[in-house]
Amino acid sequence: LQSKLPNVGTTIFTKMSALAEEHRALNLAQGFPEFDCSPDLQRLVDQYVRSGKNQYAPMPGALPLREAIAKKTFEASGREYHPVTEVTVTSGATEALFVAISTVVHPGDEVIVFEPAYDSYVPAIELSGGIPVFVTLDPHYESVDWEAVKARITGKTRAIVINTPHNPTGKVWAASDLQALALLAEEHDLIVISDEVYEYIVFDGRQHISVASILSLAERSFVCGSFGKTFHTTGWKLGYCLAPADLTAEFRKIHQFLVFSVVTPFQFAVAEYLGEPEHYLSLAAFYERKRDLFNEAIKDIGFVLKPSEGSFFQNVSYANLSDENDLALAERLTREVGVASIPVSAFYGRETDFKTLRFCFAKHDETLLKAAELLRRAL
Amino acid sequence: LQSKLPNVGTTIFTKMSALAEEHRALNLAQGFPEFDCSPDLQRLVDQYVRSGKNQYAPMPGALPLREAIAKKTFEASGREYHPVTEVTVTSGATEALFVAISTVVHPGDEVIVFEPAYDSYVPAIELSGGIPVFVTLDPHYESVDWEAVKARITGKTRAIVINTPHNPTGKVWAASDLQALALLAEEHDLIVISDEVYEYIVFDGRQHISVASILSLAERSFVCGSFGKTFHTTGWKLGYCLAPADLTAEFRKIHQFLVFSVVTPFQFAVAEYLGEPEHYLSLAAFYERKRDLFNEAIKDIGFVLKPSEGSFFQNVSYANLSDENDLALAERLTREVGVASIPVSAFYGRETDFKTLRFCFAKHDETLLKAAELLRRAL
Ligand SMILES: CSCCC(=O)C(=O)O
Ligand SMILES: CSCCC(=O)C(=O)O
Repeated sequence: LQSKLPNVGTTIFTKMSALAEEHRALNLAQGFPEFDCSPDLQRLVDQYVRSGKNQYAPMPGALPLREAIAKKTFEASGREYHPVTEVTVTSGATEALFVAISTVVHPGDEVIVFEPAYDSYVPAIELSGGIPVFVTLDPHYESVDWEAVKARITGKTRAIVINTPHNPTGKVWAASDLQALALLAEEHDLIVISDEVYEYIVFDGRQHISVASILSLAERSFVCGSFGKTFHTTGWKLGYCLAPADLTAEFRKIHQFLVFSVVTPFQFAVAEYLGEPEHYLSLAAFYERKRDLFNEAIKDIGFVLKPSEGSFFQNVSYANLSDENDLALAERLTREVGVASIPVSAFYGRETDFKTLRFCFAKHDETLLKAAELLRRAL
Repeated sequence: LQSKLPNVGTTIFTKMSALAEEHRALNLAQGFPEFDCSPDLQRLVDQYVRSGKNQYAPMPGALPLREAIAKKTFEASGREYHPVTEVTVTSGATEALFVAISTVVHPGDEVIVFEPAYDSYVPAIELSGGIPVFVTLDPHYESVDWEAVKARITGKTRAIVINTPHNPTGKVWAASDLQALALLAEEHDLIVISDEVYEYIVFDGRQHISVASILSLAERSFVCGSFGKTFHTTGWKLGYCLAPADLTAEFRKIHQFLVFSVVTPFQFAVAEYLGEPEHYLSLAAFYERKRDLFNEAIKDIGFVLKPSEGSFFQNVSYANLSDENDLALAERLTREVGVASIPVSAFYGRETDFKTLRFCFAKHDETLLKAAELLRRAL
C-alpha cells in the first residue's frame, strides 16, 4: 500500500497522552478538561436517549440544534445564518475543518496556513492534493505580519486557514487582524476556513471576533466551532460549520458521504442546554481564574511567558533553563517528573528550536498546583 | 467555488425521508428501525455519561470496545484481529468506508464497484481521484458473474468494494462468491473494501460469510461494520474497521484527522452490551419474521419478488402493475398513497428501467401491515 500521508505519524496528542498514562504523569498535554460536564447536561442526554432519539438525525443536523447555533452566532456576531441552508452539525470541529478544506481545495491549489498550526489542517490539505504555504509566527508572537502573508499569495492561492483564539499560542486576533484578512481575502478572492473552537475562552476583557461578524468575510468563509471545549464534552464529538448557502451546499455533499449525520441524542441535549446562555458565557471567567492560578504557581520557576489571551493553553519558553529541544524535554518531564506537556515544535512542519512547551490548564486546581510543584523541583 | 462532486445532489435517503415527513407517509424508505434500542443499552449509556466518560476516547477507539469487536469477529470468522493494532472504532460504517477508500485510492486508480451500490462508495472514490468501474447486477440478481468482474480488471485496478448482505437487493454471498473473490484479489493484487453492516441479519438458515473468515482475503481487506443496524441505534454513529496492522496504520493516519475519535460514552456502553452475544445473535430471527409478515401482506398485490436473503430490505418489481419509472412511482406513492420507498434506480450511476422499489421492513408490524393495505388499495 502506497501511503496517502507518508510524512504523518501518530499525532503528538495521542503520543503524549499515552506516555502520560504509561508513567502516571499529570496530563497537561492533550487539550481536554479534567473535570466533567454539567449534571444537567448529562440528564438531558439520558432524557433524549430514553425518549427514543436514537435513529439517524437529519444529515445537516437536528433542526433545534441548528436553530440554537444560528441564534448564539447572531447574538455574538450580528450575522444571521439560516439554520436550514447555512448551518451544518458535524462530528466535532475536526470533521468540520476536514470537510471545509476538502470542499475548497482542488489538486494544485495553494492554501495559506499560519505556523504554529493545529495538526489536522495540513494533512487535510494534502489529501485533497493541495499545497500548504506557511506563514511562520513564533510561539509568543505579538502580531501578524500581514505584509508577509501577502507576499506568500500567488495566482494559485485558493484559501487561508485561520484560528482564533489560537492553539497553541493562546493569541486572540484583534479587529485590525480581521480587517486585514478581509481586505486580503477580497483582493485575492480567497476562501477563509476559520477554526474558532475556543470562541468562548478569551481573557482580560478581550472579545472573540468571529469572521462571521465581518460581512465581506462571512460571505467567503467556513466558520468551524465545537461544543467539546465549551461544555467539557470533548468525547461527544459535536461541532458545526457555518457558511453561506452556496458554500454549505458543497460542504454537505462531502459531509453526507463522510459521516452522513451526527449522534442524535447529544444534538437534542445540547440544543436545549444552549437555551441558557450563561452555560457558555461563564466559561471565560472560569478559565481566566485557572490560567492565573497556574501562571502564579509557576512564576518562580524561571519560565518566560506571556499570559495566554484565550484558549485553555499556556505557552512557556524555557530557553534560559535548559538546552534540550522541546520534544526531548516534554518526554523527559513526563517520564521523570510526572508532568506531561506538548512540545510546540510539533505544531511546525519543519525543524524549529523555539524551546517552548504548551501546558493545558483545563485541569482541577490541585492538579495545576501539583504540576507546578513538580516542575519547580525538577527545573 | 468549483464543486468537488459536481454530479452529486442530496442523497435519495434524505430526499425520501423529507418527502415522507412532508406528506406524513409511512417511511419504508430510509433504512432505520422504527423501534427503539433496548432499555438496558440506554441505561448503560446513562451510566457511562454519569460516571464521566465524556472526554476524547483514544483515537483508535476505547480499548474495551476494540476487544469486544475482536472477540465477536473471532467467534464468527475464526480470524483474530489484534485489538491494539487491527481494530479501529469509527463514526459509523460510513466513516469506515470513506476512510478505507481514501486510504487505498490514489488519483487514477480504478476501483471495481458492483451496481446497484450503496450511494457513498462512488463519491468517496471520486474524492480521492479514483475511477469507479461498474459491474452491473440486476436488482433481483441470482449470482455474481465473476467472468464479467475479471473482464473489468486492468493494470490500474487497485481495489474492489463489496457488500454482503447487500443493500438494496438483500443478496447474501455464498462461500463460492468469496472464494472467487479471493482468487481474483490475489491474482490481481487488489485491496478489498467490504461493507458488512447487515452481518447479523441473514435469513432462512443462511450464514453471513465475512471476508475476515478467508485467510488470504482478510490479509488484503478492510472489513467495515456498524452497531447502528445491529442494536437499533443508527443515530449513534458507531462503527468500526478491521484490517491487518499495516493497512490499519495507514487507515488511522486519515481517521485521526477526519474525526480524531468517536463518541466515548456509547463506546463503553456498547462494549459492555456486546458481552451478551444473544443481543446480536437474536437479530436474524427478529427480522426474518418481519420480512415474512410484510411479504405475506403484499402477496396479493401482484409485485414480483424474491424473498430477501439478508439485510432489512425487500425489493419488489412492479413492471406488471405500472409503466412509471421507479423514482416517479416512489414519489407518487409517498405523496398520494402515504407509503415511502426507495427507487432502486438511485443505486445505479446511470439511467435504468428496472421498475423496482426497495421497502425497509425494520418497522413495527402494524406499520408494515398498514403499508401493505395502503399499497393494495392503490395498485
Ligand atoms: C483531538 S486531540 C487534540 C486536542 C487539542 O485540541 C489539543 O490538544 O490541541
Ligand atoms: C445513511 S442514510 C441511509 C440508510 C441506509 O443504509 C439505507 O437506507 O440504505
